[in-house]
Amino acid sequence: MDQVKGQLQYAMRTSNALTFPLSAPGSAGMEACLVNLVEPGDTVVVCRNGVFGGRMHAIVERAGGKAVAVDDPWGEPVDPNKLEEALRANPDARVVAFVHAETSTGALSDAQELARIAHAHDCLVVVDAVTSLGGVPLEVDAWELDAVYSGSQKCLSCAPGLSPLSFSERAVERVRARKVPVQSWFLDLSLVMGYWGSGAKRAYHHTAPVNAIYGLHEALRMLAEEGLEAAWARHRRHHEALAAGLEAMGLALRVAAAHRLPQLNVVSLPAGLDDGATRRRLLDEYGLEVGGGLGDLAGQVWRIGLMGAACTKTNVMLCLAALDEVLAGAAEGAGAGRGVAAAAAAYANA
Amino acid sequence: MDQVKGQLQYAMRTSNALTFPLSAPGSAGMEACLVNLVEPGDTVVVCRNGVFGGRMHAIVERAGGKAVAVDDPWGEPVDPNKLEEALRANPDARVVAFVHAETSTGALSDAQELARIAHAHDCLVVVDAVTSLGGVPLEVDAWELDAVYSGSQKCLSCAPGLSPLSFSERAVERVRARKVPVQSWFLDLSLVMGYWGSGAKRAYHHTAPVNAIYGLHEALRMLAEEGLEAAWARHRRHHEALAAGLEAMGLALRVAAAHRLPQLNVVSLPAGLDDGATRRRLLDEYGLEVGGGLGDLAGQVWRIGLMGAACTKTNVMLCLAALDEVLAGAAEGAGAGRGVAAAAAAYANA
Repeated sequence: MDQVKGQLQYAMRTSNALTFPLSAPGSAGMEACLVNLVEPGDTVVVCRNGVFGGRMHAIVERAGGKAVAVDDPWGEPVDPNKLEEALRANPDARVVAFVHAETSTGALSDAQELARIAHAHDCLVVVDAVTSLGGVPLEVDAWELDAVYSGSQKCLSCAPGLSPLSFSERAVERVRARKVPVQSWFLDLSLVMGYWGSGAKRAYHHTAPVNAIYGLHEALRMLAEEGLEAAWARHRRHHEALAAGLEAMGLALRVAAAHRLPQLNVVSLPAGLDDGATRRRLLDEYGLEVGGGLGDLAGQVWRIGLMGAACTKTNVMLCLAALDEVLAGAAEGAGAGRGVAAAAAAYANA
Repeated sequence: MDQVKGQLQYAMRTSNALTFPLSAPGSAGMEACLVNLVEPGDTVVVCRNGVFGGRMHAIVERAGGKAVAVDDPWGEPVDPNKLEEALRANPDARVVAFVHAETSTGALSDAQELARIAHAHDCLVVVDAVTSLGGVPLEVDAWELDAVYSGSQKCLSCAPGLSPLSFSERAVERVRARKVPVQSWFLDLSLVMGYWGSGAKRAYHHTAPVNAIYGLHEALRMLAEEGLEAAWARHRRHHEALAAGLEAMGLALRVAAAHRLPQLNVVSLPAGLDDGATRRRLLDEYGLEVGGGLGDLAGQVWRIGLMGAACTKTNVMLCLAALDEVLAGAAEGAGAGRGVAAAAAAYANA
């Protein structure tokens, strides 16, 4: 357990003592951060630019908080100016919540800048780092992020079911100073701390999913072996080759280049394409599972993951070759090997 | 997913459509049952005869319910007469919650009788079947249990991390008729149903721990292969041999014979025994992990598990042989092989 905590501190770039894997998936990690830090009546500014910001908003309301939404179009990052305005308009806000890497749209927001603004208004920040951890820079301490949750199954390439969490000392103090108990017994960090805390004695709280924790231990060992910066660079390199190939095939990436997630490439579907049947064909003939659009983007986009162990040159080239075949006739540039050629050129120039 | 649901229906003896593994440990399953069925202000009668009844009580209070405790001494089953009295005194009660097999004390309560009383007072019943599922008879439909949760890691011998749940149609109706949303987004069964429901289309809710679900699938396949009744009989047979051996060594079983859990044998420690050091020796020298006492019973008892795949003659005999050595001098009958001989005789007479 102490090793896993140390490995997570490395991966999240933090020295936070309360850094551990929650015994449930990322959605429970989201809920854990919010229900521990939000008390009934608290004003919480929630940035929404995709499915997961919307989920945070719903959880804040269920926790009895007053959720103030800052909305941005899907596919765009959170606009820091809008957050600033919302905080000026809501001086009683105590928490700001946003998604670092929106898995539903492929957009990366500027977590450092959003946290800076939140702190200038005396708010704690809750950050969804489900898809960012291990794939793009995430600096929990340097950016002063107060409560961060992630998932085991994204760029860590581990089995799903655990949610790495990290709480700053400031956030822990907020939990300790609560006036009413956390509504969830299972997610109450003041209890979980007795189990995952740093004391010699561990107080039983629940039966931990030990096999899953061993899996996470190995995934984090592999990340450390490669090196965190090297993993970030690898995601960037293969993303650039994939993006070059997709664009050479005439497939538009949904997110502007400056805000694209390397690990989640969202492409607009060619008009008239049968979404489900084509993704089925990629799966059946190539073993490639491409994500469909979520929420408002269902039927409009594909989400091509390049995460963790799956982020390799082999997968980039296979994906482009497969798309070349299945989209021939549907996408203007498909059917002539242009995507593969463009990616090869990008690799050569990298 | 449909196969796992069917396997769980077999193991729980139910045709409840809402029968599935929750993506978190048994403690979250407990919370899921209670927060879905309890609305703020509801009166809930909670039977407490060990650690887990106490946990249910705490969760009801966090959910805004009015928890009425029915207390019985640790090591004894829940007294149906006390439940009857509590329900007469609280005619507004809507839910009765109790633990079928108390993992902290080794006592089995009469779930059928407690459910009958609860229904006679128009209450739904929430049943903790964490340790009972697969080890002793559990008849969800025949006993009309409304909300039942279990764990993957007890008599199913699977990795920990999942909580099999089953909700009766009556319980589902109660969830659908709620006036306020369930406080937990992650545990809200009205959302989870869209994912684990019986419709052809599954709505994404959270990323399920698929590897763990495959593990559970295999564990349930093994249970079906043996046969549920055969598994119950096996637990009973090995328990009787172990109990005979323990008693021949002068070790008193904490629970009266009529209410003993075969899968969890709780013995009182000989006076003056060094609890921690002796259990450490069993682990280091024999690879036997014996559970210490929980809560009020810490330092007073050992909890010897005979669950699922670990419930074998080999383990019973090894355990008795090891105890014979490590307790020689501490327990009156230890050191002369009497435990092993008594168990062998019990097997011969079975």
